[in-house]
Parts: sequence; structure tokens; C-alpha cells
Amino acid sequence: MKPAQKNDFPVADVRQYLEPGPVLLVTSALGNERDIMTLGWHTVMEFSPSLVGCMISAGNNSHRLIKKSSECVLNLPAFALLDTLVAIGNCSGADVDKFAEFSLTPQPASEVKAPLIAECHACFECRLYDDTLVDNFNFFIFEVVKAQVASSPKYPQTVHYCGDGEFMLSGKRVSRRSQFRPEML
Amino acid sequence: MKPAQKNDFPVADVRQYLEPGPVLLVTSALGNERDIMTLGWHTVMEFSPSLVGCMISAGNNSHRLIKKSSECVLNLPAFALLDTLVAIGNCSGADVDKFAEFSLTPQPASEVKAPLIAECHACFECRLYDDTLVDNFNFFIFEVVKAQVASSPKYPQTVHYCGDGEFMLSGKRVSRRSQFRPEML
Repeated sequence: MKPAQKNDFPVADVRQYLEPGPVLLVTSALGNERDIMTLGWHTVMEFSPSLVGCMISAGNNSHRLIKKSSECVLNLPAFALLDTLVAIGNCSGADVDKFAEFSLTPQPASEVKAPLIAECHACFECRLYDDTLVDNFNFFIFEVVKAQVASSPKYPQTVHYCGDGEFMLSGKRVSRRSQFRPEML
Repeated sequence: MKPAQKNDFPVADVRQYLEPGPVLLVTSALGNERDIMTLGWHTVMEFSPSLVGCMISAGNNSHRLIKKSSECVLNLPAFALLDTLVAIGNCSGADVDKFAEFSLTPQPASEVKAPLIAECHACFECRLYDDTLVDNFNFFIFEVVKAQVASSPKYPQTVHYCGDGEFMLSGKRVSRRSQFRPEML
């Protein structure tokens, strides 16, 4: 699969990609180790600073790398990567190098040591912002410190997990902009 | 709009409806006050207990009702309610009774005092489970204590907010169940 050419994107606007609820691929690194995991349990928490809350189970190899490095990248895959992300979610980075195993291209990030996934539509580099709920809930609050988004397609078809091995694909877009008060936009 | 007939649903399975990331309508009550707000910033956090984290800005009238009552209902609207939910998100319950204003039918819940919205596809009754991040992040962790879901349609068309007055509608469903390890389902 061809890597997507990406442009810088305002970190305060990443809700456009994250709020609809797509499955993400989280990359992390620690020393010579690196890993990728699938993530469906995340939420936007603030525009500026650009905060995202992520529930990363302690059972994942990535949990250890992220907790120790205090960094990660949230990568947004489109439909073409569906089979890849299912496979990524069904094996452990403790056993395989997922970049090599699934022919994904690691690219250096600007602000963190975790690699970007070149084939993803967007990459959001994150630093740990608050760890209050990590021990009790495995809930990390990250600040997006750098965002890059592919210029095309404008609206990638994202995948949304419904449990039981089933996914919902993003459908058509509709605007109700004229019905919003200006201060709500 | 016709109220949806609903059946009891296992609280441990609500991720099927919440994880894909739809806009929700949150109902709350305190004494004689009641309110409805739109919510796009939420995430599943655990299966059992059934936990959902919600970012409810202190600027919303609902924040006060929910903080004081420690309860709410997460209602799942389908596409037919899109214009209604936009209107709900663009006015304040401090000024109007949103049930009356938008011709929505309040129904008594089983486990909480906040009302259900009869016209929604699913209603998840919630009690506050953890308030550690409420003061600093407006982040409430709720336990879903009772769930009811309409039997039809099987897959309601949900709406997902993208910012700027634009929404993504849920599209087709695909299964990759055969590619999951049994313990991952």
C-alpha cells in the first residue's frame, strides 16, 4: 500500500478526525522496542491544549512502552487497512515486529520517538498530559503536539468497531452548519 | 415521531452502540428541573462494570444537574432525530424545557431519576462511578446500570459529529469475525 503524503494540520482541530469514533492504530517506542496496537476506546477531551483520553489495557505490550516513554502516536487508518488492523489487534508486539509483519512503513515523528505509520491517513503525535487515572483505569490523557493529515481523499472511509468482529464503515456526510449558532461552531 | 419499543439489553454489551462513536443525548434531572444535552466526547472504559467516560463541559446547564444528582441517561438518537439534536445542542436548558420545546417524550427510568427519551433507539441509565477528573477535566466516569434497546431496526443509522456543523452518518457494516482469535471476541 502506498504511503499517504501528509500536510501539517492544526492540533486544535483534530476532533474532526477523532470525534466520529474511528478505530486508531497507536504506535509506541522504548529503546529498541516498538509496537502498534488497535484502539477503539478514546475520546476528545479539550481543543486547546488538544487533549485525547485513551483507555489502553495493561494487558497490551504497548501499555508498558507508552507508560515508560510517556509518548505515542495516534494513527488514523482508512478502510484499505481494515484487514491489517484486525490482524494487528489479534497478535502481540511482544512476539512480532508488527511493522515488518504487516508491511507497514515506520516514519520518524517530529516531536516524539514513537514512529508514524506512513500508510495511515493522519498521524497525531502525543505526549502524556495527565496520568491520574492510569493506575486505576488504564486511562491516559494525551496532548496532541503535532498533527499531519493526508490532503486526499478529503473524507477517508474510516472503520468503527462494534464488537463481535463487526465494523461499521463511515457513510455519507451531511451539513447542518446553517442551524448552528456561530459561537457553537 | 413514534416512540421506539425497547427491550432489556445486557449492560456489558453496550459497547456495540457506544464504541462506534455516535452523538448521544444525555438526560438529567434534579428536583423539578430536567435537561437534555448533546454529547460527542465519550468513550467506553470497561465491560464489567459497564463504564463510560463522558466529558461534560461545566458551561452546560446539564453539568450542574448531573454533578448534583450523580446520575444521567445516555440516549442514542438515530438519523431521524438529527435536526432535533442540532437544535438541542444550540440552546440551553436553563432557558427552555427541551422535552416540550422539541416534542420529545420523557419516560420514567428504572434505576435513576433522569428521564429516558422515548424516541431514541437505545437508553442507557447511568450512575456516577468515579469523579476523580470532574473538577479538573469535567470528565465523569459513569456505570451503565440498566440498558434498553429497540428491537428494530437492527442497525440504526447513527450520526457522528465532525465539528463545523458537519456530521458523518453510519454506513455499511462488515464482519471480520473469522479473522479474530476467539478470546478477542
